[in-house]
Amino acid sequence: MLVHGRPYRTIFPADDGAGVDVIDQTQLPFTFVTRRLRTVEEAAAAIRDMIVRGAPLIGVTAAYGLALAMRDDPGDANLSRAMALLAATRPTAVNLRWALARMHALLAPEAPADRAARAYREAAAIADEDVAACAAIGRHGRAVLEQLAAQRPGQPLRVLTHCNAGWLACVDWGTALAPVYAAHAAGMALHVYVDETRPRNQGAALTAFELGAHGVPHTVIVDNAGGHLMQHGVIDVCIVGSDRTTATGDVCNKIGTYLKALAAHDNGVPFYAALPSSTIDWSIDDGVRDIPIEERSAREVTHLRGRDAQGRIHELEVVAPGSPAANPAFDVTPARLVTGIITERGVAPASRAGLESLYPERTGG
Amino acid sequence: MLVHGRPYRTIFPADDGAGVDVIDQTQLPFTFVTRRLRTVEEAAAAIRDMIVRGAPLIGVTAAYGLALAMRDDPGDANLSRAMALLAATRPTAVNLRWALARMHALLAPEAPADRAARAYREAAAIADEDVAACAAIGRHGRAVLEQLAAQRPGQPLRVLTHCNAGWLACVDWGTALAPVYAAHAAGMALHVYVDETRPRNQGAALTAFELGAHGVPHTVIVDNAGGHLMQHGVIDVCIVGSDRTTATGDVCNKIGTYLKALAAHDNGVPFYAALPSSTIDWSIDDGVRDIPIEERSAREVTHLRGRDAQGRIHELEVVAPGSPAANPAFDVTPARLVTGIITERGVAPASRAGLESLYPERTGG
Repeated sequence: MLVHGRPYRTIFPADDGAGVDVIDQTQLPFTFVTRRLRTVEEAAAAIRDMIVRGAPLIGVTAAYGLALAMRDDPGDANLSRAMALLAATRPTAVNLRWALARMHALLAPEAPADRAARAYREAAAIADEDVAACAAIGRHGRAVLEQLAAQRPGQPLRVLTHCNAGWLACVDWGTALAPVYAAHAAGMALHVYVDETRPRNQGAALTAFELGAHGVPHTVIVDNAGGHLMQHGVIDVCIVGSDRTTATGDVCNKIGTYLKALAAHDNGVPFYAALPSSTIDWSIDDGVRDIPIEERSAREVTHLRGRDAQGRIHELEVVAPGSPAANPAFDVTPARLVTGIITERGVAPASRAGLESLYPERTGG
Repeated sequence: MLVHGRPYRTIFPADDGAGVDVIDQTQLPFTFVTRRLRTVEEAAAAIRDMIVRGAPLIGVTAAYGLALAMRDDPGDANLSRAMALLAATRPTAVNLRWALARMHALLAPEAPADRAARAYREAAAIADEDVAACAAIGRHGRAVLEQLAAQRPGQPLRVLTHCNAGWLACVDWGTALAPVYAAHAAGMALHVYVDETRPRNQGAALTAFELGAHGVPHTVIVDNAGGHLMQHGVIDVCIVGSDRTTATGDVCNKIGTYLKALAAHDNGVPFYAALPSSTIDWSIDDGVRDIPIEERSAREVTHLRGRDAQGRIHELEVVAPGSPAANPAFDVTPARLVTGIITERGVAPASRAGLESLYPERTGG
């Protein structure tokens, strides 16, 4: 997508032919800067410290991380070490494990001398496939939005989204925002309500930045406000991404998603999750019981980064000194609250039968 | 309650015999300082700028504001002007209107020469009645908590609260926190989960400060986290305050309360609102339709105050530059999601019949 008039992906091979460049998302929305990853350790740190984030982008970064490792030392021991290092960065997003498993299956049988070149090619393929999947999600989701917009002719469709499942969470286009970008490109009038998404404010920082840079009308709200807006008929549809989706359609996404799904259900507002199939964990049936929820640092709750009046970025303490904080990073929205799941293959009910109708190769799997 | 070992109310007559001192809540949790209100204009500004906040405290401050006005000029014109000035400060909390109406009914028939003394006495009476009401809410609510605690013997009762409905929102004791303080005083083991309550962070700043100062174990969480905790059985009961309650039991409270009530309902967690009867608006049946919701400045969403590493308080921008923000300050939790309402007279179902059982003088009113 465009930033300052120039097209970007969130991750791309560096012009030195070895490293990988990523947009440093911890500096947004105030500074747009890329950062070069030169080693698997740097790739792992970029995932852990959320320089890159978003389930699809994490997967691609892990794939490139393995390529960086193979360039340094393509031996079996280093392959195992790199796999373990990358797998340990974030526990919830399944794309990370999916991308690592795919890379490992390909690299393990390969002669060490060939592994690096093969790894770079496969990482690039995963990135390109993610772009294609997101573009397809955009097309399928746009049809959903057009149907909803037809119910209020002549008026902008009002979309609520949580966290950032835009192009910054992927390689390009995004998941939840891909339908928004596709509809916007087709000339549909839209207005996006953006949950700020505490504690890390990915909505206020990243989604608002993306939409603003792309010229999509939007309004930032605190996470508390969405229920009130839905009660008053101000939201026509909710769309969120997913960090892991069960085979039965439970959607694990950024903490607070579940609360919006409850409000959507209570007010008859359609609630969609948009995700590439790499986000589906076919091995899990019960999201609340079986998806491990990352517990992040209390400091993300007690301290907040931002820009002061002089343009300097720094951090402030915002909680009563001495009070402890807890910071679960994701929650699970049960399938019963999800109107539909939008994937690269189409739109399906959030259920085993629904997902299997899109992925018949998984039937009975 | 105690602050630095000294008992305080949130508002009290100044030792100059004329002004009124209040705790400046915009400086908490980092600085504890009182501020003297000398005129009705200063009282109105204190309410509008949230130097004082919380429905009961707003009512008492408005009453003292009228006393300050009568001291300056007890004439009819000034009484009307002061009434209008104070009524315009905040639109949602009904206690403001309730306190002003009570003061006006008393002062209007009085000879101007007697109005100031009468107004000071009545404001003090309203403050004392609020303390008594909150103490009674504490006793009734404590019985509710004891019943719930009996279901998990030997383990701390885990309470979730939103915003600040503690003693800082009242004159003393609090509404939602009064049962917590009463139970704590009686030796019950409790753990309070405190929603930070964006955008103004009254939970992280005021509730956490209160509980910490009083030695009640607690954990601050982002507003997004409560649903996840309830899904995982970590919350035994929710208690919130109310800024306006309909005759049918709809509870208007700080934005985001409705989302927690939905999660409580979805997970079978009891959800109580604790409030003095001055918060009940007997003239309204449908809270979503009829309660005006204050829309506050977008700057409360886009900028955040806190303390830097050098101990200086300042403000940071936290939203993508140029992105607009909306800031509705309250929402309405329909009575169907409220397990019970705890008032100074006892606990009742959130319904017209329930409230009328506590306030039979209102039956058919």
